[in-house]
Amino acid sequence: MRILGIDPGLRTTGFGVLEKRGNQLHYIASGTIKSDGNSSLPERLKTLYDGVAEVTRTYAPDCAAIEKVFVNVNPQSTLLLGQARGAAICGLVGHGLPVYEYTPMQLKVAVVGYGRANKEQVQEMVVRLLGLPGRPGTDASDALGVAICHANGGDALGTLAGLAPELARRGVRVRRGRLVG
Amino acid sequence: MRILGIDPGLRTTGFGVLEKRGNQLHYIASGTIKSDGNSSLPERLKTLYDGVAEVTRTYAPDCAAIEKVFVNVNPQSTLLLGQARGAAICGLVGHGLPVYEYTPMQLKVAVVGYGRANKEQVQEMVVRLLGLPGRPGTDASDALGVAICHANGGDALGTLAGLAPELARRGVRVRRGRLVG
Repeated sequence: MRILGIDPGLRTTGFGVLEKRGNQLHYIASGTIKSDGNSSLPERLKTLYDGVAEVTRTYAPDCAAIEKVFVNVNPQSTLLLGQARGAAICGLVGHGLPVYEYTPMQLKVAVVGYGRANKEQVQEMVVRLLGLPGRPGTDASDALGVAICHANGGDALGTLAGLAPELARRGVRVRRGRLVG
Repeated sequence: MRILGIDPGLRTTGFGVLEKRGNQLHYIASGTIKSDGNSSLPERLKTLYDGVAEVTRTYAPDCAAIEKVFVNVNPQSTLLLGQARGAAICGLVGHGLPVYEYTPMQLKVAVVGYGRANKEQVQEMVVRLLGLPGRPGTDASDALGVAICHANGGDALGTLAGLAPELARRGVRVRRGRLVG
């Protein structure tokens, strides 16, 4: 099963592609789609939509996973983020992909092992779980994180059961409810 | 010039198509696209995106006009409206249409003649300006309103200059800065 993870944003949308074969996760690709801040909003949304559609065509995933976003302290930012997320989702569903949504809490539990992990911890665990040679940017690693979350059932129970062999193989253990390497 | 106006909303998105020939506006079509409240958000966004894309293919407009939305008192509603608007815009730009944005104030000035008009006044003036036999729903009339706004240059000056012959033909006069029929 090939999964495309998306971390939506108006300025930068991260994407990450991985494959689940048995209990193992394999990294395929990741990157970012950036829109030009000097363009009109419809043009920026088109850039995001086209970019996500292009990634979908290039990597031919079976499904997509996207983080649920929450309201920002700044209502205008919330509105812009909402429009960016709408554009990204259309780039996926416009090509017939089923799209699954996960909360940031589900992502963190799935990737790091507890729900209050910070971005750096998500990044670090994405590198370990996928055996990456380098550290992807935070947008790309959040996108890979939500793909990992979907690969492992999207919840803590599914995740821990699904990840256990993978984690053991990579030398990661659970200690006091936290994953340690 | 054929113009597609869009009034975006997650539950109901209104659309209106009109043609500008010389200084005259001609009604072509209007209606609504509704998404099922029991479906997932990605499915609802797909319904809106597909609906707007279908309207675009069916009526082959030269350009589209869409109302700028403002933040709601409820941040969660703002986020949902933003995503619906992002999906609607993708249905337009995904088919290569140029999209123009107008504020509610610009729309009201263009259609009713002053910026604090209410929905019923917009509806009434859309009926008069396009010579409609009946009154379209508020979503469809707002969509026709933003198309009229674009047809007339999108600002009060352009609108009054552009609409004057049309208004005179329809027996509408300006009195103390308001349009009266």
